[in-house]
Amino acid sequence: MKEVKVLTKILRANDMIAVEIRSLLDSHGIPCLNLMSSPGAGKTTLLEKTAQLLSGTLSLAAIEGDVATSLDGERLNAAGIPTVQVNTGGGCHLDASMIKDALQNFDLEKTDLLFIENVGNLICPSSFDLGEHVRVVLLSLPEGEDKPLKYPAMFLNSSVLVLSKVDLAERCGDSLTLSKANALRVNPRLKVFEVSSKDGTGLKEWGDYLRALVAEKGKEKGKRD
Amino acid sequence: MKEVKVLTKILRANDMIAVEIRSLLDSHGIPCLNLMSSPGAGKTTLLEKTAQLLSGTLSLAAIEGDVATSLDGERLNAAGIPTVQVNTGGGCHLDASMIKDALQNFDLEKTDLLFIENVGNLICPSSFDLGEHVRVVLLSLPEGEDKPLKYPAMFLNSSVLVLSKVDLAERCGDSLTLSKANALRVNPRLKVFEVSSKDGTGLKEWGDYLRALVAEKGKEKGKRD
Repeated sequence: MKEVKVLTKILRANDMIAVEIRSLLDSHGIPCLNLMSSPGAGKTTLLEKTAQLLSGTLSLAAIEGDVATSLDGERLNAAGIPTVQVNTGGGCHLDASMIKDALQNFDLEKTDLLFIENVGNLICPSSFDLGEHVRVVLLSLPEGEDKPLKYPAMFLNSSVLVLSKVDLAERCGDSLTLSKANALRVNPRLKVFEVSSKDGTGLKEWGDYLRALVAEKGKEKGKRD
Repeated sequence: MKEVKVLTKILRANDMIAVEIRSLLDSHGIPCLNLMSSPGAGKTTLLEKTAQLLSGTLSLAAIEGDVATSLDGERLNAAGIPTVQVNTGGGCHLDASMIKDALQNFDLEKTDLLFIENVGNLICPSSFDLGEHVRVVLLSLPEGEDKPLKYPAMFLNSSVLVLSKVDLAERCGDSLTLSKANALRVNPRLKVFEVSSKDGTGLKEWGDYLRALVAEKGKEKGKRD
Protein backbone atom coordinates (compact mmCIF):
# COMPACT_ATOMS: atom_id res chain seq x y z
CA MET A 1 0.00 0.00 0.00
CA LYS A 2 2.99 2.31 0.52
CA GLU A 3 3.33 3.07 -3.24
CA VAL A 4 -0.28 4.27 -3.45
CA LYS A 5 0.20 6.67 -0.55
CA VAL A 6 3.33 8.15 -2.11
CA LEU A 7 1.59 8.64 -5.47
CA THR A 8 -1.35 10.39 -3.80
CA LYS A 9 1.04 12.72 -2.03
CA ILE A 10 2.82 13.64 -5.28
CA LEU A 11 -0.45 14.32 -7.05
CA ARG A 12 -1.69 16.58 -4.28
CA ALA A 13 1.55 18.59 -4.27
CA ASN A 14 1.24 18.88 -8.08
CA ASP A 15 -2.34 20.12 -7.81
CA MET A 16 -1.42 22.80 -5.28
CA ILE A 17 1.27 24.17 -7.60
CA ALA A 18 -1.20 24.01 -10.52
CA VAL A 19 -3.68 26.18 -8.59
CA GLU A 20 -0.89 28.67 -7.92
CA ILE A 21 0.06 28.78 -11.64
CA ARG A 22 -3.55 29.27 -12.77
CA SER A 23 -3.97 32.10 -10.31
CA LEU A 24 -0.77 33.79 -11.55
CA LEU A 25 -1.89 33.50 -15.18
CA ASP A 26 -5.39 34.77 -14.30
CA SER A 27 -3.90 37.83 -12.63
CA HIS A 28 -2.20 38.64 -15.94
CA GLY A 29 -5.23 37.75 -18.07
CA ILE A 30 -3.30 35.03 -19.93
CA PRO A 31 -5.20 31.95 -21.11
CA CYS A 32 -3.07 28.80 -21.14
CA LEU A 33 -3.60 25.74 -23.36
CA ASN A 34 -2.01 22.36 -22.61
CA LEU A 35 -1.52 20.47 -25.91
CA MET A 36 -1.35 16.69 -25.59
CA SER A 37 -1.18 13.82 -28.08
CA SER A 38 0.70 10.76 -29.28
CA PRO A 39 4.19 11.45 -30.62
CA GLY A 40 3.99 12.95 -34.10
CA ALA A 41 0.35 14.07 -34.14
CA GLY A 42 1.44 17.55 -35.14
CA LYS A 43 1.50 19.68 -31.98
CA THR A 44 4.65 21.64 -32.90
CA THR A 45 3.58 22.16 -36.50
CA LEU A 46 0.18 23.45 -35.34
CA LEU A 47 1.96 25.95 -33.07
CA GLU A 48 4.20 27.08 -35.95
CA LYS A 49 1.06 27.74 -38.02
CA THR A 50 -0.60 29.43 -35.04
CA ALA A 51 2.36 31.83 -34.81
CA GLN A 52 1.79 32.82 -38.46
CA LEU A 53 -1.97 33.17 -37.92
CA LEU A 54 -1.71 35.46 -34.91
CA SER A 55 1.48 37.27 -35.87
CA GLY A 56 1.31 40.98 -35.17
CA THR A 57 -1.95 40.75 -33.23
CA LEU A 58 -1.15 38.65 -30.13
CA SER A 59 2.04 37.94 -28.17
CA LEU A 60 2.45 34.21 -27.75
CA ALA A 61 4.71 32.20 -25.47
CA ALA A 62 5.33 28.46 -25.19
CA ILE A 63 6.72 25.86 -22.82
CA GLU A 64 7.97 22.89 -24.81
CA GLY A 65 8.14 19.49 -23.10
CA ASP A 66 10.24 16.65 -24.48
CA VAL A 67 11.99 13.56 -23.19
CA ALA A 68 15.17 14.69 -24.97
CA THR A 69 16.54 17.28 -27.42
CA SER A 70 15.58 20.93 -27.93
CA LEU A 71 14.50 20.38 -31.55
CA ASP A 72 10.90 21.49 -30.98
CA GLY A 73 11.85 24.47 -28.81
CA GLU A 74 14.17 25.65 -31.58
CA ARG A 75 11.38 25.30 -34.14
CA LEU A 76 9.00 27.40 -32.04
CA ASN A 77 11.60 30.06 -31.35
CA ALA A 78 12.33 30.20 -35.08
CA ALA A 79 8.59 30.64 -35.68
CA GLY A 80 8.65 33.71 -33.47
CA ILE A 81 7.23 32.22 -30.24
CA PRO A 82 9.46 32.84 -27.21
CA THR A 83 9.85 29.29 -25.90
CA VAL A 84 11.34 27.58 -22.87
CA GLN A 85 12.39 23.99 -23.54
CA VAL A 86 11.85 21.53 -20.67
CA ASN A 87 13.56 18.14 -21.00
CA THR A 88 12.20 15.46 -18.71
CA GLY A 89 15.25 13.20 -19.14
CA GLY A 90 13.14 10.09 -19.63
CA GLY A 91 10.01 11.25 -17.79
CA CYS A 92 6.76 10.59 -19.64
CA HIS A 93 4.86 13.81 -18.80
CA LEU A 94 5.26 17.39 -17.60
CA ASP A 95 4.27 18.29 -14.05
CA ALA A 96 3.25 21.58 -12.47
CA SER A 97 6.60 22.26 -10.81
CA MET A 98 8.31 22.21 -14.24
CA ILE A 99 5.80 24.77 -15.50
CA LYS A 100 6.24 26.97 -12.41
CA ASP A 101 10.02 27.03 -12.98
CA ALA A 102 9.67 27.66 -16.72
CA LEU A 103 7.28 30.60 -16.17
CA GLN A 104 10.04 32.59 -14.47
CA ASN A 105 11.64 33.03 -17.90
CA PHE A 106 8.73 34.97 -19.42
CA ASP A 107 7.62 38.58 -19.17
CA LEU A 108 3.98 37.87 -18.33
CA GLU A 109 3.01 41.53 -18.67
CA LYS A 110 3.85 41.28 -22.36
CA THR A 111 2.26 37.86 -22.97
CA ASP A 112 -1.27 37.38 -24.33
CA LEU A 113 -1.47 33.61 -24.72
CA LEU A 114 0.57 30.70 -23.35
CA PHE A 115 0.89 27.25 -24.89
CA ILE A 116 2.28 24.20 -23.12
CA GLU A 117 3.31 21.44 -25.51
CA ASN A 118 3.35 18.30 -23.43
CA VAL A 119 5.52 15.20 -23.96
CA GLY A 120 4.15 13.02 -26.77
CA ASN A 121 2.17 10.41 -24.86
CA LEU A 122 -1.55 9.63 -25.00
CA ILE A 123 -1.67 8.26 -21.44
CA CYS A 124 0.36 9.77 -18.58
CA PRO A 125 0.04 13.54 -19.26
CA SER A 126 -3.74 13.38 -18.79
CA SER A 127 -3.26 12.78 -15.03
CA PHE A 128 -1.31 15.98 -14.36
CA ASP A 129 -2.89 19.40 -13.92
CA LEU A 130 -0.34 21.97 -15.15
CA GLY A 131 -2.37 25.04 -14.23
CA GLU A 132 -3.73 25.32 -17.78
CA HIS A 133 -7.21 26.66 -18.59
CA VAL A 134 -7.87 24.43 -21.59
CA ARG A 135 -6.71 20.90 -22.27
CA VAL A 136 -6.38 20.19 -25.97
CA VAL A 137 -5.91 16.66 -27.30
CA LEU A 138 -4.66 16.24 -30.88
CA LEU A 139 -5.47 13.07 -32.79
CA SER A 140 -3.97 12.67 -36.27
CA LEU A 141 -6.00 10.71 -38.81
CA PRO A 142 -3.30 8.09 -39.56
CA GLU A 143 -3.39 6.98 -35.90
CA GLY A 144 -6.75 5.33 -36.46
CA GLU A 145 -10.29 5.91 -35.30
CA ASP A 146 -10.16 3.55 -32.31
CA LYS A 147 -7.79 5.70 -30.23
CA PRO A 148 -10.44 7.60 -28.19
CA LEU A 149 -11.89 4.25 -27.09
CA LYS A 150 -8.50 2.73 -26.29
CA TYR A 151 -7.11 5.78 -24.46
CA PRO A 152 -10.30 7.19 -22.92
CA ALA A 153 -8.84 9.22 -20.02
CA MET A 154 -7.07 11.63 -22.36
CA PHE A 155 -10.27 12.39 -24.28
CA LEU A 156 -12.42 12.52 -21.14
CA ASN A 157 -10.07 14.98 -19.41
CA SER A 158 -9.77 17.33 -22.41
CA SER A 159 -12.22 20.00 -23.51
CA VAL A 160 -10.92 20.51 -27.06
CA LEU A 161 -10.11 17.93 -29.74
CA VAL A 162 -8.00 18.85 -32.75
CA LEU A 163 -8.33 16.21 -35.47
CA SER A 164 -5.06 16.80 -37.33
CA LYS A 165 -3.61 15.81 -40.71
CA VAL A 166 -7.09 15.85 -42.28
CA ASP A 167 -5.36 16.30 -45.67
CA LEU A 168 -4.75 12.53 -45.40
CA ALA A 169 -8.50 11.84 -45.02
CA GLU A 170 -8.90 10.11 -48.38
CA ARG A 171 -5.92 7.85 -47.58
CA CYS A 172 -7.42 6.88 -44.21
CA GLY A 173 -10.86 5.52 -45.18
CA ASP A 174 -13.58 6.62 -42.75
CA SER A 175 -11.07 7.64 -40.10
CA LEU A 176 -12.22 11.28 -39.93
CA THR A 177 -15.89 10.55 -39.32
CA LEU A 178 -15.23 7.61 -37.00
CA SER A 179 -12.47 9.33 -34.97
CA LYS A 180 -14.80 12.23 -34.27
CA ALA A 181 -17.73 9.95 -33.42
CA ASN A 182 -15.62 7.83 -31.05
CA ALA A 183 -14.17 10.89 -29.32
CA LEU A 184 -17.64 12.36 -28.79
CA ARG A 185 -18.85 9.00 -27.51
CA VAL A 186 -16.15 9.17 -24.79
CA ASN A 187 -16.72 12.88 -24.13
CA PRO A 188 -19.79 14.55 -25.73
CA ARG A 189 -18.67 17.99 -24.49
CA LEU A 190 -15.52 18.09 -26.65
CA LYS A 191 -15.19 21.11 -28.93
CA VAL A 192 -13.82 19.72 -32.20
CA PHE A 193 -11.53 21.33 -34.80
CA GLU A 194 -10.65 19.55 -38.05
CA VAL A 195 -7.26 20.83 -39.11
CA SER A 196 -4.49 20.32 -41.61
CA SER A 197 -1.36 22.33 -40.97
CA LYS A 198 -0.19 21.22 -44.42
CA ASP A 199 -3.03 22.59 -46.58
CA GLY A 200 -4.45 25.11 -44.09
CA THR A 201 -7.84 23.45 -43.50
CA GLY A 202 -9.48 24.62 -40.28
CA LEU A 203 -6.70 26.99 -39.24
CA LYS A 204 -8.95 30.07 -39.48
CA GLU A 205 -11.47 28.54 -37.04
CA TRP A 206 -8.62 27.59 -34.68
CA GLY A 207 -7.23 31.13 -34.80
CA ASP A 208 -10.68 32.65 -34.16
CA TYR A 209 -11.10 30.38 -31.16
CA LEU A 210 -7.75 31.47 -29.70
CA ARG A 211 -8.55 35.17 -30.23
CA ALA A 212 -11.88 34.70 -28.43
CA LEU A 213 -10.12 32.99 -25.50
CA VAL A 214 -7.73 35.92 -25.14
CA ALA A 215 -10.56 38.46 -25.36
CA GLU A 216 -12.56 36.60 -22.72
CA LYS A 217 -9.59 36.28 -20.34
CA GLY A 218 -8.83 39.98 -20.76
CA LYS A 219 -12.44 40.86 -19.84
CA GLU A 220 -12.23 38.64 -16.75
CA LYS A 221 -9.04 40.40 -15.72
CA GLY A 222 -10.65 43.80 -16.34
CA LYS A 223 -13.54 42.96 -14.03
CA ARG A 224 -11.11 42.00 -11.25
CA ASP A 225 -8.81 45.02 -11.63
CA MET B 1 14.73 9.46 -1.70
CA LYS B 2 12.02 7.01 -0.63
CA GLU B 3 10.33 7.04 -4.08
CA VAL B 4 13.56 6.02 -5.82
CA LYS B 5 14.03 3.05 -3.52
CA VAL B 6 10.50 1.83 -4.15
CA LEU B 7 10.92 2.10 -7.92
CA THR B 8 14.17 0.16 -7.80
CA LYS B 9 12.46 -2.59 -5.85
CA ILE B 10 9.62 -2.84 -8.37
CA LEU B 11 12.04 -3.01 -11.29
CA ARG B 12 14.08 -5.75 -9.67
CA ALA B 13 10.97 -7.83 -8.96
CA ASN B 14 9.91 -7.31 -12.59
CA ASP B 15 13.31 -8.43 -13.87
CA MET B 16 13.23 -11.63 -11.81
CA ILE B 17 9.84 -12.56 -13.28
CA ALA B 18 11.14 -11.68 -16.76
CA VAL B 19 14.05 -14.12 -16.35
CA GLU B 20 11.57 -16.80 -15.28
CA ILE B 21 9.38 -16.15 -18.36
CA ARG B 22 12.35 -16.25 -20.76
CA SER B 23 13.49 -19.51 -19.27
CA LEU B 24 10.00 -21.02 -19.64
CA LEU B 25 9.79 -19.92 -23.28
CA ASP B 26 13.31 -21.22 -23.97
CA SER B 27 12.39 -24.62 -22.59
CA HIS B 28 9.59 -24.78 -25.19
CA GLY B 29 11.73 -23.32 -28.00
CA ILE B 30 9.38 -20.35 -28.42
CA PRO B 31 10.85 -17.00 -29.51
CA CYS B 32 8.98 -14.01 -28.12
CA LEU B 33 8.81 -10.54 -29.68
CA ASN B 34 7.72 -7.47 -27.72
CA LEU B 35 6.18 -4.94 -30.15
CA MET B 36 6.27 -1.33 -28.99
CA SER B 37 5.36 2.01 -30.59
CA SER B 38 3.29 5.18 -30.38
CA PRO B 39 -0.47 4.65 -30.53
CA GLY B 40 -1.56 3.93 -34.09
CA ALA B 41 1.80 3.00 -35.64
CA GLY B 42 0.27 -0.24 -36.92
CA LYS B 43 1.24 -3.00 -34.46
CA THR B 44 -2.10 -4.82 -34.61
CA THR B 45 -2.36 -4.53 -38.39
CA LEU B 46 1.17 -5.91 -38.79
CA LEU B 47 0.21 -8.90 -36.63
CA GLU B 48 -2.94 -9.48 -38.71
CA LYS B 49 -0.77 -9.55 -41.84
CA THR B 50 1.78 -11.78 -40.07
CA ALA B 51 -1.00 -14.28 -39.33
CA GLN B 52 -1.79 -14.46 -43.07
CA LEU B 53 1.90 -14.76 -43.97
CA LEU B 54 2.63 -17.64 -41.62
CA SER B 55 -0.76 -19.32 -41.76
CA GLY B 56 -0.50 -23.11 -41.98
CA THR B 57 3.23 -23.15 -41.29
CA LEU B 58 3.64 -21.79 -37.75
CA SER B 59 1.38 -21.65 -34.68
CA LEU B 60 1.29 -18.10 -33.36
CA ALA B 61 0.04 -16.72 -30.06
CA ALA B 62 -0.30 -13.16 -28.79
CA ILE B 63 -0.67 -11.18 -25.61
CA GLU B 64 -2.41 -7.90 -26.34
CA GLY B 65 -1.86 -4.96 -23.99
CA ASP B 66 -4.19 -1.96 -23.92
CA VAL B 67 -5.26 0.70 -21.45
CA ALA B 68 -8.89 -0.13 -22.22
CA THR B 69 -11.14 -2.21 -24.52
CA SER B 70 -10.56 -5.62 -26.09
CA LEU B 71 -10.79 -4.27 -29.66
CA ASP B 72 -7.27 -5.33 -30.65
CA GLY B 73 -7.51 -8.74 -28.97
CA GLU B 74 -10.69 -9.39 -30.93
CA ARG B 75 -8.98 -8.41 -34.18
CA LEU B 76 -6.08 -10.80 -33.54
CA ASN B 77 -8.38 -13.65 -32.56
CA ALA B 78 -10.38 -13.02 -35.74
CA ALA B 79 -7.10 -13.17 -37.69
CA GLY B 80 -6.50 -16.65 -36.30
CA ILE B 81 -3.99 -15.82 -33.55
CA PRO B 82 -5.04 -17.16 -30.12
CA THR B 83 -4.80 -13.98 -28.03
CA VAL B 84 -5.08 -13.02 -24.39
CA GLN B 85 -6.15 -9.42 -23.86
CA VAL B 86 -4.55 -7.60 -20.92
CA ASN B 87 -6.14 -4.30 -19.89
CA THR B 88 -3.96 -2.11 -17.71
CA GLY B 89 -6.86 0.07 -16.57
CA GLY B 90 -4.94 3.29 -17.08
CA GLY B 91 -1.42 1.89 -16.74
CA CYS B 92 0.99 3.05 -19.43
CA HIS B 93 2.95 -0.20 -20.01
CA LEU B 94 2.87 -3.95 -19.54
CA ASP B 95 5.00 -5.56 -16.83
CA ALA B 96 6.38 -9.06 -16.48
CA SER B 97 3.79 -10.22 -13.91
CA MET B 98 1.00 -9.50 -16.43
CA ILE B 99 2.82 -11.65 -19.01
CA LYS B 100 3.38 -14.46 -16.52
CA ASP B 101 -0.35 -14.54 -15.71
CA ALA B 102 -1.36 -14.36 -19.38
CA LEU B 103 0.96 -17.24 -20.35
CA GLN B 104 -1.10 -19.65 -18.26
CA ASN B 105 -3.81 -19.41 -20.91
CA PHE B 106 -1.71 -20.87 -23.73
CA ASP B 107 -0.73 -24.41 -24.66
CA LEU B 108 3.01 -23.74 -25.02
CA GLU B 109 3.65 -27.21 -26.44
CA LYS B 110 1.58 -26.21 -29.46
CA THR B 111 2.99 -22.68 -29.84
CA ASP B 112 5.85 -21.79 -32.23
CA LEU B 113 6.05 -18.02 -31.85
CA LEU B 114 4.72 -15.54 -29.27
CA PHE B 115 4.02 -11.85 -29.81
CA ILE B 116 3.45 -9.32 -27.08
CA GLU B 117 1.76 -6.16 -28.30
CA ASN B 118 2.57 -3.52 -25.72
CA VAL B 119 0.47 -0.49 -24.77
CA GLY B 120 0.85 2.30 -27.36
CA ASN B 121 3.47 4.51 -25.76
CA LEU B 122 6.93 5.45 -27.02
CA ILE B 123 8.35 6.04 -23.53
CA CYS B 124 7.39 3.88 -20.53
CA PRO B 125 7.30 0.35 -22.07
CA SER B 126 11.01 0.55 -22.92
CA SER B 127 11.92 0.32 -19.20
CA PHE B 128 10.20 -3.02 -18.59
CA ASP B 129 11.71 -6.39 -19.48
CA LEU B 130 8.79 -8.74 -20.25
CA GLY B 131 10.89 -11.85 -20.79
CA GLU B 132 10.90 -11.31 -24.56
CA HIS B 133 13.81 -12.31 -26.79
CA VAL B 134 13.47 -9.46 -29.27
CA ARG B 135 12.30 -5.92 -28.74
CA VAL B 136 10.72 -4.45 -31.84
CA VAL B 137 9.93 -0.75 -32.14
CA LEU B 138 7.54 0.38 -34.87
CA LEU B 139 7.74 3.91 -36.24
CA SER B 140 5.15 4.99 -38.78
CA LEU B 141 6.23 7.51 -41.40
CA PRO B 142 3.55 10.12 -40.58
CA GLU B 143 4.94 10.43 -37.04
CA GLY B 144 7.97 12.29 -38.38
CA GLU B 145 11.65 11.62 -38.68
CA ASP B 146 12.66 13.28 -35.41
CA LYS B 147 11.11 10.65 -33.14
CA PRO B 148 14.23 8.47 -32.62
CA LEU B 149 16.10 11.56 -31.41
CA LYS B 150 13.25 12.75 -29.17
CA TYR B 151 12.49 9.31 -27.66
CA PRO B 152 15.96 7.74 -27.67
CA ALA B 153 15.53 5.08 -24.95
CA MET B 154 12.94 3.17 -26.98
CA PHE B 155 15.25 2.96 -30.00
CA LEU B 156 18.34 2.26 -27.93
CA ASN B 157 16.65 -0.60 -26.06
CA SER B 158 15.23 -2.29 -29.18
CA SER B 159 17.04 -4.57 -31.60
CA VAL B 160 14.56 -4.37 -34.49
CA LEU B 161 12.97 -1.30 -36.11
CA VAL B 162 9.90 -1.63 -38.31
CA LEU B 163 9.36 1.53 -40.34
CA SER B 164 5.63 1.22 -41.01
CA LYS B 165 3.11 2.84 -43.38
CA VAL B 166 5.82 3.27 -46.03
CA ASP B 167 3.01 3.49 -48.62
CA LEU B 168 2.68 7.09 -47.35
CA ALA B 169 6.33 7.83 -48.18
CA GLU B 170 5.61 10.24 -51.01
CA ARG B 171 3.20 12.17 -48.76
CA CYS B 172 5.82 12.45 -46.01
CA GLY B 173 8.76 14.13 -47.79
CA ASP B 174 12.10 12.64 -46.78
CA SER B 175 10.64 10.98 -43.69
CA LEU B 176 11.62 7.43 -44.72
CA THR B 177 15.32 8.17 -45.30
CA LEU B 178 15.62 10.51 -42.32
CA SER B 179 13.67 8.30 -39.87
CA LYS B 180 15.99 5.42 -40.68
CA ALA B 181 19.12 7.57 -40.44
CA ASN B 182 18.06 9.06 -37.09
CA ALA B 183 17.19 5.64 -35.65
CA LEU B 184 20.57 4.23 -36.70
CA ARG B 185 22.27 7.29 -35.24
CA VAL B 186 20.70 6.44 -31.85
CA ASN B 187 21.32 2.70 -32.24
CA PRO B 188 23.56 1.53 -35.12
CA ARG B 189 22.82 -2.14 -34.34
CA LEU B 190 19.10 -1.90 -35.22
CA LYS B 191 17.88 -4.39 -37.82
CA VAL B 192 15.50 -2.38 -40.03
CA PHE B 193 12.39 -3.48 -41.95
CA GLU B 194 10.50 -1.09 -44.22
CA VAL B 195 6.91 -2.24 -44.27
CA SER B 196 3.46 -1.32 -45.48
CA SER B 197 0.68 -3.56 -44.22
CA LYS B 198 -1.58 -1.79 -46.72
CA ASP B 199 0.25 -2.55 -49.99
CA GLY B 200 2.37 -5.47 -48.76
CA THR B 201 5.82 -3.83 -49.04
CA GLY B 202 8.43 -5.61 -46.92
CA LEU B 203 6.10 -8.27 -45.52
CA LYS B 204 8.02 -11.12 -47.16
CA GLU B 205 11.29 -10.04 -45.49
CA TRP B 206 9.47 -9.73 -42.14
CA GLY B 207 8.00 -13.22 -42.53
CA ASP B 208 11.39 -14.71 -43.48
CA TYR B 209 12.93 -13.12 -40.40
CA LEU B 210 10.27 -14.63 -38.13
CA ARG B 211 10.69 -18.08 -39.68
CA ALA B 212 14.45 -17.88 -39.11
CA LEU B 213 13.89 -16.90 -35.46
CA VAL B 214 11.68 -19.93 -34.91
CA ALA B 215 14.16 -22.26 -36.65
CA GLU B 216 17.03 -20.90 -34.53
CA LYS B 217 15.09 -21.24 -31.27
CA GLY B 218 14.10 -24.80 -32.17
CA LYS B 219 17.76 -25.69 -32.78
CA GLU B 220 18.73 -24.19 -29.41
CA LYS B 221 16.04 -26.26 -27.75
CA GLY B 222 17.21 -29.40 -29.59
CA LYS B 223 20.76 -28.94 -28.33
CA ARG B 224 19.50 -28.67 -24.75
CA ASP B 225 17.11 -31.66 -24.94
